[in-house]
Amino acid sequence: MESDVRTDARRRHDPGVRGFASDNYAGAHPEVLAALALANGGHQAAYGGDDYTAHLRSVIRSHFGPDAQVFPVFNGTGANVVALQALTDRWGAVIAAESAHIHVDECGAPERVGGLKLLTVPTEDGKLTPELVDRQAYGWDDEHRAMPQVVSISQSTELGTVYTPEEIRALCAHAHARGMTVHLDGSRLANAAAALDVPMRAFTNVPGVDVLSLGGTKNGMLFGEAVVVLNPEAARGMPHLRKLSMQLASKMRFVSVQFEALLARDLWLRNARHANAMARRLADGAAAVAGVTVLHPVQANAVFARLPRTVSERLRRRYPFYYWDEAAGDVRWMCSFDTTEEDVDGFLAALREETDRT
Amino acid sequence: MESDVRTDARRRHDPGVRGFASDNYAGAHPEVLAALALANGGHQAAYGGDDYTAHLRSVIRSHFGPDAQVFPVFNGTGANVVALQALTDRWGAVIAAESAHIHVDECGAPERVGGLKLLTVPTEDGKLTPELVDRQAYGWDDEHRAMPQVVSISQSTELGTVYTPEEIRALCAHAHARGMTVHLDGSRLANAAAALDVPMRAFTNVPGVDVLSLGGTKNGMLFGEAVVVLNPEAARGMPHLRKLSMQLASKMRFVSVQFEALLARDLWLRNARHANAMARRLADGAAAVAGVTVLHPVQANAVFARLPRTVSERLRRRYPFYYWDEAAGDVRWMCSFDTTEEDVDGFLAALREETDRT
Amino acid sequence: MESDVRTDARRRHDPGVRGFASDNYAGAHPEVLAALALANGGHQAAYGGDDYTAHLRSVIRSHFGPDAQVFPVFNGTGANVVALQALTDRWGAVIAAESAHIHVDECGAPERVGGLKLLTVPTEDGKLTPELVDRQAYGWDDEHRAMPQVVSISQSTELGTVYTPEEIRALCAHAHARGMTVHLDGSRLANAAAALDVPMRAFTNVPGVDVLSLGGTKNGMLFGEAVVVLNPEAARGMPHLRKLSMQLASKMRFVSVQFEALLARDLWLRNARHANAMARRLADGAAAVAGVTVLHPVQANAVFARLPRTVSERLRRRYPFYYWDEAAGDVRWMCSFDTTEEDVDGFLAALREETDRT
Amino acid sequence: MESDVRTDARRRHDPGVRGFASDNYAGAHPEVLAALALANGGHQAAYGGDDYTAHLRSVIRSHFGPDAQVFPVFNGTGANVVALQALTDRWGAVIAAESAHIHVDECGAPERVGGLKLLTVPTEDGKLTPELVDRQAYGWDDEHRAMPQVVSISQSTELGTVYTPEEIRALCAHAHARGMTVHLDGSRLANAAAALDVPMRAFTNVPGVDVLSLGGTKNGMLFGEAVVVLNPEAARGMPHLRKLSMQLASKMRFVSVQFEALLARDLWLRNARHANAMARRLADGAAAVAGVTVLHPVQANAVFARLPRTVSERLRRRYPFYYWDEAAGDVRWMCSFDTTEEDVDGFLAALREETDRT
Repeated sequence: MESDVRTDARRRHDPGVRGFASDNYAGAHPEVLAALALANGGHQAAYGGDDYTAHLRSVIRSHFGPDAQVFPVFNGTGANVVALQALTDRWGAVIAAESAHIHVDECGAPERVGGLKLLTVPTEDGKLTPELVDRQAYGWDDEHRAMPQVVSISQSTELGTVYTPEEIRALCAHAHARGMTVHLDGSRLANAAAALDVPMRAFTNVPGVDVLSLGGTKNGMLFGEAVVVLNPEAARGMPHLRKLSMQLASKMRFVSVQFEALLARDLWLRNARHANAMARRLADGAAAVAGVTVLHPVQANAVFARLPRTVSERLRRRYPFYYWDEAAGDVRWMCSFDTTEEDVDGFLAALREETDRT
Repeated sequence: MESDVRTDARRRHDPGVRGFASDNYAGAHPEVLAALALANGGHQAAYGGDDYTAHLRSVIRSHFGPDAQVFPVFNGTGANVVALQALTDRWGAVIAAESAHIHVDECGAPERVGGLKLLTVPTEDGKLTPELVDRQAYGWDDEHRAMPQVVSISQSTELGTVYTPEEIRALCAHAHARGMTVHLDGSRLANAAAALDVPMRAFTNVPGVDVLSLGGTKNGMLFGEAVVVLNPEAARGMPHLRKLSMQLASKMRFVSVQFEALLARDLWLRNARHANAMARRLADGAAAVAGVTVLHPVQANAVFARLPRTVSERLRRRYPFYYWDEAAGDVRWMCSFDTTEEDVDGFLAALREETDRT
Repeated sequence: MESDVRTDARRRHDPGVRGFASDNYAGAHPEVLAALALANGGHQAAYGGDDYTAHLRSVIRSHFGPDAQVFPVFNGTGANVVALQALTDRWGAVIAAESAHIHVDECGAPERVGGLKLLTVPTEDGKLTPELVDRQAYGWDDEHRAMPQVVSISQSTELGTVYTPEEIRALCAHAHARGMTVHLDGSRLANAAAALDVPMRAFTNVPGVDVLSLGGTKNGMLFGEAVVVLNPEAARGMPHLRKLSMQLASKMRFVSVQFEALLARDLWLRNARHANAMARRLADGAAAVAGVTVLHPVQANAVFARLPRTVSERLRRRYPFYYWDEAAGDVRWMCSFDTTEEDVDGFLAALREETDRT
Repeated sequence: MESDVRTDARRRHDPGVRGFASDNYAGAHPEVLAALALANGGHQAAYGGDDYTAHLRSVIRSHFGPDAQVFPVFNGTGANVVALQALTDRWGAVIAAESAHIHVDECGAPERVGGLKLLTVPTEDGKLTPELVDRQAYGWDDEHRAMPQVVSISQSTELGTVYTPEEIRALCAHAHARGMTVHLDGSRLANAAAALDVPMRAFTNVPGVDVLSLGGTKNGMLFGEAVVVLNPEAARGMPHLRKLSMQLASKMRFVSVQFEALLARDLWLRNARHANAMARRLADGAAAVAGVTVLHPVQANAVFARLPRTVSERLRRRYPFYYWDEAAGDVRWMCSFDTTEEDVDGFLAALREETDRT
């Protein structure tokens, strides 16, 4: 996006530097950035009383059905903690995979901000099953135990895997039969839809998810996520909870118009399909390199691999990425909407070079 | 800001509609919006590891001295609650004016997220004094009482008034002598600097404020505020507190570059001076209308007035604004960086019309 | 109470030392202490599954009507915070007198443990009125404001005053008409009943109080209070809230049997009447001393007085008591179930001596 | 304990009914009950200013060394949550065994009251090791992760096992080397001392435990536990934390004198030795019954066993006890200070009868 307006800020980074560290190392999609200018100017009611948030409501209903309610927030941790509070009493507990973002990557925000107790279960691939849920789903009448009230799943998961709609339907039925609700952490929901090649509703409201954290940032926004209440009977107090959890944007039009840019037509899906395709290309290429093992099914935009520490150390000097399990030598490579085939091919060439050098 | 990039979002509002409801009804300053494009593209480390946040650190030091540390966050409530947590123990209390934003406008976030106890004092004009502080500053050894550890002031205040540097110096000396620290809620810090015609440091780090909530949104940003630690010995755990309080932006470059656009030269001051001048113009015009009383000294960008309910009711149908004390008939008119002389004059004409009609 | 059982503990205090510092400086009434032995021995289900707690339920119903539910807890702060959590959502606020124990004497436990926001109102005599409630009872739809959900009153108050049944009825009607519930902090409920010479129900469940903190300790127990839910539709989650608030006694029989000793017949009332009579005697005597002003109506077991600092300083060396407002020279003298006429007369003699010496 | 004092309370239970459900199904030891009368009468300063609490300090020092500080509280959950708050910052996390009481049996109080994040590790026998600690001890500089600051162990454990002093020394050295402190949940500390036949200091302050939750209730008190700070440099804010956590007893003399009765000479040890011996007798007898498997080393006063569901169901109708893992058919039998040889032998006879009937 170019502009005639002068600014005292300066470009300080080299856009040619690329990596596979995280999909939030990418910037914003140009179509999203352009949308901001549309929403600017004049006076619009703050805190969600603006025309863009009003329109976003209908956009969200077009994706998630007529009951869906949208509450834009700032970030993914905020979306999750607001959503989980809306689904629980003060004495509630949340059943989640041991690898869940809410458990390992939010510095205890669910516990500290929401007073939530997390009951976690180890999983093979980041996915819960009814059987795994049952390891924690008991004791509702026992006042000594935090009461299991929510099952929280991630789609796609922290491990880059994707639940089928049928798997989510089974989890929802199981949870509901036990008086619990279902939260879905969808910071990469678009990637899951692209992977499954179905509309987002097919694995959210249709199979029975009650409340959704809808990702925007990793799908090409500058910032912004949303809590989408799919079952209004399950969630209480959303407006107040968003405010008291410090997730209520004053100039909300700038969050909502970004979501509009993504969701009004198919930018969300184009971005996700592209990121997934790049991950597929990366995984296929990496799997062909001797000494490199791809660890989980590559279903979305994440590739997990095991390779010799000496190789990964050298490779990290050329392309940023993270260890997932440093002791085991496991690494994570993320692709984003702006990852190019050249990025992937360049990285694979580097991977082969560093492997050969061993 | 115009752009060649297509977007599926559409303009949905009339930028010609103006009002005096709040300075966050305004959008973003065009120079701020333009800055976003500079920071876009390529891959930059998330969560503050980017080049824009690095540069912002030096910009902040140029304003607030070499010890200042900056922690960009999402919004003002977030900035305040993160700052106050960094200044308190679990058993700490915060002395504040009864009219303080943290007490009346944050839905209990300080209490609920931070576990903070607020000890409030009624004030005439939103400003604390050492004598008013002493109404709550006692009982440090009494385990039955939340321990007063912080004095929190707002500059400019909720009532549009401004502390002089000397007043802040006296408050800081008083607080420090009693073992307390000082937090300054500066969501409208720029307006205070413009009103006093001194650099921001003159009433923050120089007189001894320990931690500052630095406003960006009301000064022309799309979103974004910052905690600025002026006295690093007084604040503990900032990085973790920002994360667990759900105020850590992943693509932080887009917060930091906005602050750069404001603070690198003088946009922050131009915006604030303009808003203040418009408030002055509005207050002067309103005071000349029979039946209208301006309530507090108009020192920043807020005008408080008392006028007949019938007048304010009719006027609100033409220009949005809020009641401050509905029973008393008190209203608040806010001016922003984009309020024009025509806006003010049109409003004053409407005020006179509605007053005459009575 | 004497016993044949040896014990390695030793008597370490002089029971002849008396004072007027607080009604919790007293020990336990001998009839209460004797009751403990009855409940001892054998195995009884823990956490309230015992026969004494079962019986206490019927005792409580005999006092507070057939809907009353009792939840014994450890102390008054615990009772208040558990009760208020049961009456509020996460976004709820509690309207209370500025002098309320929950605001000034619980080290922020309501805020820190319950995440509660307190909205306080200054009062003349520690008593709220519908008009005073209305200073904070507004803004239920405003997500920026903690939602007023409970009115909390104390009976007798921190200032030794007593609400009439009619006053409580008016407060309850007022609160209920606004969708709020009423909590009554009854750490000195018995003293109020004695003062009013009516059954406890006459100013609790009958006029519409929803949940009660029922005091035991200051009425002659060793320890123990209870949350009494008078309106089961207003309170949610009591068993879990008591446990998670760390107020669930394992050997609950020893709390319940103490309440039985107090409440089964009239020990609670005898104790309270006696304490009130001693306060009356003390107030009458003190009021007759030149230079001593009794400050509030002496309706329960507290006497507030203003006297010269030199007198109170000397007097405090002979009898322990507390300043209430040290700057003003206001003191509080509390009488308890074991205060004797000799105690009072001795104290009055000392007061006269120290006054004469001035 | 008999007494001449009349009371309106009545004996309502049959002391002849016995069981193995929990050591808190027992009442109080007669010597403890007798001690209460000694502390009664007269006026003693509340909230710990009394002579019994003063004396308890020296008793505690005699057991735990000259640096030990004692803070009596109401119950075990309270002791644990107060202690852990004193050892952590707002961003801290606690490493504990997955079976720890703080994780499975406190209804989320550590998370909800203390804002604590628990990082748990599965164990074989309820005991952590340095290697198990290391599964969670990492990421101190990562603001996305709750910061591991405390290792919390139980002695004896939830599974009736006991750490040797050497094992605790290794854990403390390991934790301290990583900048963490060590909390020991000693609700059954006496049983561990009896099992190891060493003074309590040998496995608490001597090997380096920083803060201790000292059990009283399960060792024969009516109620009452204590936080014992062994390393005053590691714990901050204890007096305020105890109050704000609603664990500050007003008539504290009645907690302290019970501890004196236990600890002044050897009642604590007699009680624990007896309970352990009864568990040993029970385990030996049960292990000899065909179809019954004793599951863990019986080192303290708990016996875990696996037996056919039909047998345990019938047996539970005769003697109360709990399932530990209902699906697996695992049960827990607890012995207490007042369990008799006749109780055990009667139970074993019943076990044999019900087993034979299968």
